[in-house]
Amino acid sequence: MSKRLIPLAAMEKIMKNCGAERVSDNAKAALKEVLEQKAEEISSRAVKLAMHAARKTVKASDIKLAAKQ
Amino acid sequence: MSKRLIPLAAMEKIMKNCGAERVSDNAKAALKEVLEQKAEEISSRAVKLAMHAARKTVKASDIKLAAKQ
Repeated sequence: MSKRLIPLAAMEKIMKNCGAERVSDNAKAALKEVLEQKAEEISSRAVKLAMHAARKTVKASDIKLAAKQ
Repeated sequence: MSKRLIPLAAMEKIMKNCGAERVSDNAKAALKEVLEQKAEEISSRAVKLAMHAARKTVKASDIKLAAKQ
């Protein structure tokens, strides 16, 4: 997965919003990694769901169902 | 959750990397929403784990443990 998809600054912001006083650089990278992996899992399932429905466009309903699986 | 944390363009890129031919705007927003929610869950747990270890800094090990819970 490319290193530029989800910005590290966003990871820090989310952690601080959740009460973190300080955040290590490795923690930001770890959260980014977890989220990108999750995004890939959900996206791969959503693509299969769209194909199953004979569509070329992935819709929000595909993502929502994929996120539940 | 702020609307600017995870960029929509990144959501499209990930879905296309996973084989999507086309992606609706709502699908991008839905994936972003799922990921931001997941990020908040993990971050909140990680902050508690850091506090439990008497640290003010959230480390990668907190994120990794929080992601497994």
